[in-house]
Amino acid sequence: MANIEARVLRGFRDYLPDVMLPRQRMLEVVSGVFESFGFSPLSTPALEYADVLVGKYGEEGEKLLYRFLDNGERDVALRYDLTVPLARLVDMNRDLVRPFKRYQIAPVWRAETPGRGRFREFVQCDIDIVGSDSLMADAECLAVGASVLEALGVSRFVLRINNTKLLTGLMHKIGVSSDAEQALLRTVDKLPKIGEARTRELLATESKLSASGVDAVFEFLRLKPEALDDYFVGNDVGLKGASELRTVLALARDLGVSDKVEVDLSIARGLDYYTGTIYETFLLDLESIGSVMSGGRYDTLLAMFGGEALPAVGISLGVDRLFSALQELGLVVAKASPTQVLVTVFDEGTRAASYAVAARLRQAGLNVEVFLGTGKLKKQFQYVDRKRIPFAVVSGPDELQRGEVTLKHMSSGEQTTFVWQDEAGIVSLAERVRAG
Amino acid sequence: MANIEARVLRGFRDYLPDVMLPRQRMLEVVSGVFESFGFSPLSTPALEYADVLVGKYGEEGEKLLYRFLDNGERDVALRYDLTVPLARLVDMNRDLVRPFKRYQIAPVWRAETPGRGRFREFVQCDIDIVGSDSLMADAECLAVGASVLEALGVSRFVLRINNTKLLTGLMHKIGVSSDAEQALLRTVDKLPKIGEARTRELLATESKLSASGVDAVFEFLRLKPEALDDYFVGNDVGLKGASELRTVLALARDLGVSDKVEVDLSIARGLDYYTGTIYETFLLDLESIGSVMSGGRYDTLLAMFGGEALPAVGISLGVDRLFSALQELGLVVAKASPTQVLVTVFDEGTRAASYAVAARLRQAGLNVEVFLGTGKLKKQFQYVDRKRIPFAVVSGPDELQRGEVTLKHMSSGEQTTFVWQDEAGIVSLAERVRAG
Repeated sequence: MANIEARVLRGFRDYLPDVMLPRQRMLEVVSGVFESFGFSPLSTPALEYADVLVGKYGEEGEKLLYRFLDNGERDVALRYDLTVPLARLVDMNRDLVRPFKRYQIAPVWRAETPGRGRFREFVQCDIDIVGSDSLMADAECLAVGASVLEALGVSRFVLRINNTKLLTGLMHKIGVSSDAEQALLRTVDKLPKIGEARTRELLATESKLSASGVDAVFEFLRLKPEALDDYFVGNDVGLKGASELRTVLALARDLGVSDKVEVDLSIARGLDYYTGTIYETFLLDLESIGSVMSGGRYDTLLAMFGGEALPAVGISLGVDRLFSALQELGLVVAKASPTQVLVTVFDEGTRAASYAVAARLRQAGLNVEVFLGTGKLKKQFQYVDRKRIPFAVVSGPDELQRGEVTLKHMSSGEQTTFVWQDEAGIVSLAERVRAG
Repeated sequence: MANIEARVLRGFRDYLPDVMLPRQRMLEVVSGVFESFGFSPLSTPALEYADVLVGKYGEEGEKLLYRFLDNGERDVALRYDLTVPLARLVDMNRDLVRPFKRYQIAPVWRAETPGRGRFREFVQCDIDIVGSDSLMADAECLAVGASVLEALGVSRFVLRINNTKLLTGLMHKIGVSSDAEQALLRTVDKLPKIGEARTRELLATESKLSASGVDAVFEFLRLKPEALDDYFVGNDVGLKGASELRTVLALARDLGVSDKVEVDLSIARGLDYYTGTIYETFLLDLESIGSVMSGGRYDTLLAMFGGEALPAVGISLGVDRLFSALQELGLVVAKASPTQVLVTVFDEGTRAASYAVAARLRQAGLNVEVFLGTGKLKKQFQYVDRKRIPFAVVSGPDELQRGEVTLKHMSSGEQTTFVWQDEAGIVSLAERVRAG
């Protein structure tokens, strides 16, 4: 075999246990919350026929597809997101009971230029409610988002909401031509990042707004939600947006999340996709990292395969960004091993007893390793320390014979003796370990 | 947008919720058992440099690689298994604490001819212990395998073990030339499937064994483990195999799994890869589906990237086969939704109360949906029935006002009233739901 260099493609990465363990715990919490709201897991293939994906992501997105001819000369591509596969699946399974509430947590592939925080393979985590036009569905996404963050231990966050119909109403009102709408929305969307001065400049140059047009945009952005009806008198789409926004706010109150929800008329996200409510989520102690969860209502997108139009609303969690944020906030403990207790092996003669102790502790719900060998205790402790396993069971033959074990807390050196052959002894040992 | 037909590539498939939910539960149980033995999760990229993968799977395997030039003209391929990426990762991360115990559950891609039970994308589920030559590691894999099946509710199964050194010893003894060894092993491996007569035939034609050579193979296969030492007198590799097998059996006894472990000298699995203990696992009530978990020790494979040789042992679980088996054994409940309770919404005025009830029930650990709308109760019950949600909360305004709710068990029609505003009431409602 030739001597091949072991290496990873740029933009791709291994997750070693110290990252993978807490990341997997985070995703378990997240999927637990999704399921607690009745969302079902779903899985779609990594590869799709290319024609299922092309034409869905714009010119820029299309260039990023991993597209190739397979061994049977089929034109195929790796999935670029989870939304187009969802649309395909819904079209192929019209008998799915609606509203269809699904979540999917899976990698997607985009041949981006890799850079700080930008990867060619990354995990998306989406929930969507398909087949309901009730604004209760829009509000439910807010409640799910808030519950996810709370379950992860984050308490200081805000879900900022807007409604694309308000932005459409604004553009009708100030007379933006339809081909300039996207540029205006993209500019408004950047406001928090680029500031008012630069936004004004771009509105004038890129969206060709007059000085009074630019002023009108900022007048709108400063409106209080309760002023929207007056502002949009005679403007149907604007009034509809105001009414929807008001209803979602009222539902958020009913859901008990209104203290986490805030109207932000500058949230834009691109009008070609979203058709109503749109969301972004910011962590108040780390606002600079940007939105960790965003989404909105898209009532036309799922018709892309020629089927009936299907109203849908969803929210997507930025897994990598949120995980980084939890790390920065000290809400993640890096662990190289799930093991809570290492049971040492004194010698060949006590090995069976070590196995029995380990089996009892596993039954009590602990993650337990038995040292693989019968080396010197010093060597066994080195392994415990290097793997940062918090506890070790160390027992000599006489002790084991008496039905006892000694639990050692590695960082403090504290040693406690437990009767391992008796249920109460195992329970109290497990409690000691869980106390950390 | 052109009218594209929504379809899935042959050999690929969607997992809809009714399959995905129980399958995900199965994998959660499996990874829980892995972690309880101290195995850490790991993730590697779907795409690798092609040269990392080629030359590792034989000529036949190589043809099945999904290999292509990416947008940067790099020669890349989708991973074919989880073992070669593990070898790559271990070579790149030489500071990982050893023994390195990892598990990985992830899809792999092979351009096989799709057929009954054969897919081009399927999930592999591997555990491996890297960096230990202790036979305690070999035995631990047996204990993990047995614990996985028991945790999934399977009690009637057998782990059949063998040692490749015994087969090597046999071939030395009867004088099989080294280029004929693989063919002989492949033939022996097929014995349970093709029967003795056909096996004898193949040994004569494909491995060019004389009649007495064929007899010698069957004499070996019928040996009792305790007769191996006599059989291999003067045959070092055979004696080493016998000693290792005996030690693993003794360790299995210490581990309390010896009633599930059985020696089967006909298990072969291919000598070019495995170097010692080999395993296969059969369900006694469904033996015909073949081995659901198999693996062994491979002490040279991980040196493929030119690094030091690293002893390793592992076991791989056939996710699809095991899931099918659990379905056939009635150990899997197909569910289209994780929801345990649907809270109906009587009207706009009681919606906030419905939300509050749902939130309390979620806090009590239940998966709860609130109906998305305020339609007629009949329509709400239709949704409950079609999604096969087992319970509904149905409460009128007066009842809610009094702090009460009625829980309806859908299949029996049984209705029970609970005080939802009080912790004890919520706890007993949750207990009723969990009782099913």
